[in-house]
Amino acid sequence: MTAAPTVSLIPLGGTREIGKNMTAVEYGDDIVIIDAGVAFPDEELLGIDLVVPDIDYLLENQERVRGIVLTHGHEDHIGALPYVLPRLSVPVYGTKLTIGLVRKKLEEHRLNKQAKLNVVVPGEAPAKLGQITVEWIRTNHSIPDGCALAIHTPAGVIVHSGDFKIDLTPVDGRQTDMSRLSALGDQGVLALFCDATNAERPGYTSSEKVVGETFDRIFEKAEGRVLIATFASNIHRIQQAIDVAVRYGRKVAIAGRSMRENVAVSEELGYLRVPKGALVELEEVGHLPDNKVVLLTTGSQGEPMAALTRMATNDHRQVQIRRGDTVVISATPIPGNESLVGRTIDNLFRLGAEVIYKGVAQVHVSGHASREEIKLMINMVRPRYLVPFHGEYRHLAAFLKIAEELGIKRENVLIPDIGDRIEVSREKGAITGHVQSGSVFIDGLGIGDVGHIVLRDRLSLATNGVLVVVVVMDKQREKFLSGPDIITRGFVYVRESEALLESAKKQASAVLKEIEEKKITEWSVIKLKIQETLGAYFDAVTGRRPNILPIIIEI
Amino acid sequence: MTAAPTVSLIPLGGTREIGKNMTAVEYGDDIVIIDAGVAFPDEELLGIDLVVPDIDYLLENQERVRGIVLTHGHEDHIGALPYVLPRLSVPVYGTKLTIGLVRKKLEEHRLNKQAKLNVVVPGEAPAKLGQITVEWIRTNHSIPDGCALAIHTPAGVIVHSGDFKIDLTPVDGRQTDMSRLSALGDQGVLALFCDATNAERPGYTSSEKVVGETFDRIFEKAEGRVLIATFASNIHRIQQAIDVAVRYGRKVAIAGRSMRENVAVSEELGYLRVPKGALVELEEVGHLPDNKVVLLTTGSQGEPMAALTRMATNDHRQVQIRRGDTVVISATPIPGNESLVGRTIDNLFRLGAEVIYKGVAQVHVSGHASREEIKLMINMVRPRYLVPFHGEYRHLAAFLKIAEELGIKRENVLIPDIGDRIEVSREKGAITGHVQSGSVFIDGLGIGDVGHIVLRDRLSLATNGVLVVVVVMDKQREKFLSGPDIITRGFVYVRESEALLESAKKQASAVLKEIEEKKITEWSVIKLKIQETLGAYFDAVTGRRPNILPIIIEI
Repeated sequence: MTAAPTVSLIPLGGTREIGKNMTAVEYGDDIVIIDAGVAFPDEELLGIDLVVPDIDYLLENQERVRGIVLTHGHEDHIGALPYVLPRLSVPVYGTKLTIGLVRKKLEEHRLNKQAKLNVVVPGEAPAKLGQITVEWIRTNHSIPDGCALAIHTPAGVIVHSGDFKIDLTPVDGRQTDMSRLSALGDQGVLALFCDATNAERPGYTSSEKVVGETFDRIFEKAEGRVLIATFASNIHRIQQAIDVAVRYGRKVAIAGRSMRENVAVSEELGYLRVPKGALVELEEVGHLPDNKVVLLTTGSQGEPMAALTRMATNDHRQVQIRRGDTVVISATPIPGNESLVGRTIDNLFRLGAEVIYKGVAQVHVSGHASREEIKLMINMVRPRYLVPFHGEYRHLAAFLKIAEELGIKRENVLIPDIGDRIEVSREKGAITGHVQSGSVFIDGLGIGDVGHIVLRDRLSLATNGVLVVVVVMDKQREKFLSGPDIITRGFVYVRESEALLESAKKQASAVLKEIEEKKITEWSVIKLKIQETLGAYFDAVTGRRPNILPIIIEI
Repeated sequence: MTAAPTVSLIPLGGTREIGKNMTAVEYGDDIVIIDAGVAFPDEELLGIDLVVPDIDYLLENQERVRGIVLTHGHEDHIGALPYVLPRLSVPVYGTKLTIGLVRKKLEEHRLNKQAKLNVVVPGEAPAKLGQITVEWIRTNHSIPDGCALAIHTPAGVIVHSGDFKIDLTPVDGRQTDMSRLSALGDQGVLALFCDATNAERPGYTSSEKVVGETFDRIFEKAEGRVLIATFASNIHRIQQAIDVAVRYGRKVAIAGRSMRENVAVSEELGYLRVPKGALVELEEVGHLPDNKVVLLTTGSQGEPMAALTRMATNDHRQVQIRRGDTVVISATPIPGNESLVGRTIDNLFRLGAEVIYKGVAQVHVSGHASREEIKLMINMVRPRYLVPFHGEYRHLAAFLKIAEELGIKRENVLIPDIGDRIEVSREKGAITGHVQSGSVFIDGLGIGDVGHIVLRDRLSLATNGVLVVVVVMDKQREKFLSGPDIITRGFVYVRESEALLESAKKQASAVLKEIEEKKITEWSVIKLKIQETLGAYFDAVTGRRPNILPIIIEI
């Protein structure tokens, strides 16, 4: 008797974290990559623009990589493609809107020419990638055209839920394909990767339709302009806003580049139905009566450069917020953005707007399955092994409780760390190894050139500022020709601290004299002495410790 | 007919913001200050430890200031005293626990000797401060001994709600003195300062007792140690934890200096009843079986140095979290702390603990009145003018809606900015002026020596790092004797960026050569040329713009 064939599942991102989703599925000589997302830096990653998965493992095995298959078009699933594709030139597969958004993104990075983009249709011919065959299965999410994937391998079928909810009254009428998911369950599924984002939330996530109903009530009462801020990719939300606007005889203008682009792509590909004449240019709204205007805008997360944030600080070129405006924040703050969103709401109130936000009205619903929907997914697919993804540890812990409630054995739920290799077969499933993996920071054009040492320095500079001490020595290192000169940034306000800095200079001069007398010539010792003396001095006088950078110049 | 006498109300903090509460009440030659609180810096105030109100106005009028009256002992109401009292030596009045906490705080700053601290008893003899008489009226809040104040002036009575909720089943049995508040209402109140923190929340805030019931259910199930993290000042919460521990035969140990101190002060003053033998030292818990142990700990906000945060990162000297532990986060994240708290929860799960937090169980209730309680307060006091405080603009906007629901005229609700002078009399109430006011930043020992320029520099250093360019010129400024030398911090990882920095050095050398040839001797021009050239170079090559600090040394 030979062992049952096994398939390897390697999350390279998106587990024990929310963001930068990427998972490698490996069977024999074939590797298929599910998604290639970015994560947005948390506040400790000072100056970092984006975080992408470390793909060294894939590069080492690039001759085996058959393609990248995408579940949907959100940044945390497609945003790393501009960094991955130049190094790993493989075909990319996704549904029409997903590929449309990818194409747009690659155009911005001037990578569209060489990319091999393939549009797939859920429920139709699957993609054959070596011995692995990938099938797209329609689900609901906060962006149209989201899918689960069935990855067929000779070892068995792996289902990846994608980011999903089960919306029984979806805006586009396209329901989650429960029939296909159940059929796969009947045939037997080896493992299910399941979206755990909302594993803490009891019950069912509300239908997107609910938001449209709230919009209707808001429009009914609004006497002036209505502004709606939401995620640029939430096309169904935008559809509902446009529909309600048309119903109330209002014209819609869009503020914010990303939303304009997404609307254009979605309309072109047939995912957004805009009645003729419903959209007007932002420049034109000034000529319309206030009660005939709806503005759709970015900035629902309080992002400093986004349209609504600028309007809230009176810094938008075309739109000034004024008394009579109704502003709807149709989103929930992503963890970490609470203060930014709060400040935007405050600023809008201050300008006299009526602001309607989560907690005051149901102007947002989640795109992710709550506990009962997760149970439904698991019960349809009935996998041998269950792998939660898209969650921090606490969401995965909540997911474990769901599995427990369903009577699933603890050993059949696998919670990998990033880079863990899960091997599953009809006989067993376990974490059997670990591959090179992790986070790569993008700062400007630099990919991976900022690491923890640079970040530690930035944090220290941020907290304490910097103080540069320059001295000039003669080549024989016998005496100091000039200095010490002291220059600071971010430490004290120099104009009001002349006495402090003058006194520090005297301290430093005394050290230099001592160094001359003791004939110390070792640079590292000289630098250390300057740092110690001034560090202790500033600590005693100011209670602060600036970064002291001694610079010695030899002449 | 002479005009009715007026009283001035000047918020110096705590309006259009949450934090650093301080309000001056001025009648004739007398000024009384209500509270003196700190605010905690938001993430943009890099390196700042605390924010206190600007008290220049009070200092200018110090001969008229009769005293500081305190509503309760929270940091945002008493925390600025160590900065205020050395400059403004006036008596301080408050209830027993409040003054006990103030005394402790002043001891830490070695200011207790000179301080004139007075304990008052709610419902008993009021404090006479010049022509102003202040009366303390018991309310409920998340710290014992919280009070509203009735400020009696010849112009009329001002009521200040303090931070309050109306708890009908308070842990200490002491109810809000609704009888006295209503009697004041009957006699006529000129203005009510009302806590607006929870003006967005419908209904009533739950009683503190509810948390005790949740604790009971948690203890019933817990098989190992139970850890409860909460605010160090929430003595009623701590009381309930101790009571439940005793009921289940567990001993209680306390981790975290601030909680140990608050427990000691509260027990000594009779605000916390600890059964004999219920408390043990942290060192002793190792000798007890796990199911006999409760740890009360600080760190419910994920503060980096607090006990629970350290335990969660395996960095606490005495307590290691392990499988079987139940950790209760009995608090809600203060806005801005969500990520820190989320990370702590994650880390605890990762170490194998069962973590119970808000959203999973009712382990926290607010200390502030919800909408219906705010209505109750207003209806009891029935003031001529209403002034919401303790809220950002959106809370104040929600408060306006409450007033509207109660049929209060819009012009009778005054929403001042910090420093606005409100004048009220029996005939009218309006904002009539503005005094010097604002925020003062405390960084280490420095009070006010870090301002917006330094913060702007810190933000820029945090994002981009710093690059120092040193050149040495002869005294005639005809030629460069040495350099350019380049030193960086927080920009790129130097060891892996030698080529980049070498090439930057060449760019700088070329500029210096050009400067020599053109006989440019003006320092500012030389510096600018270096900054421009290197700035453009790094932007093109790295997409980043480090802070370039050119330093010219003359020899």
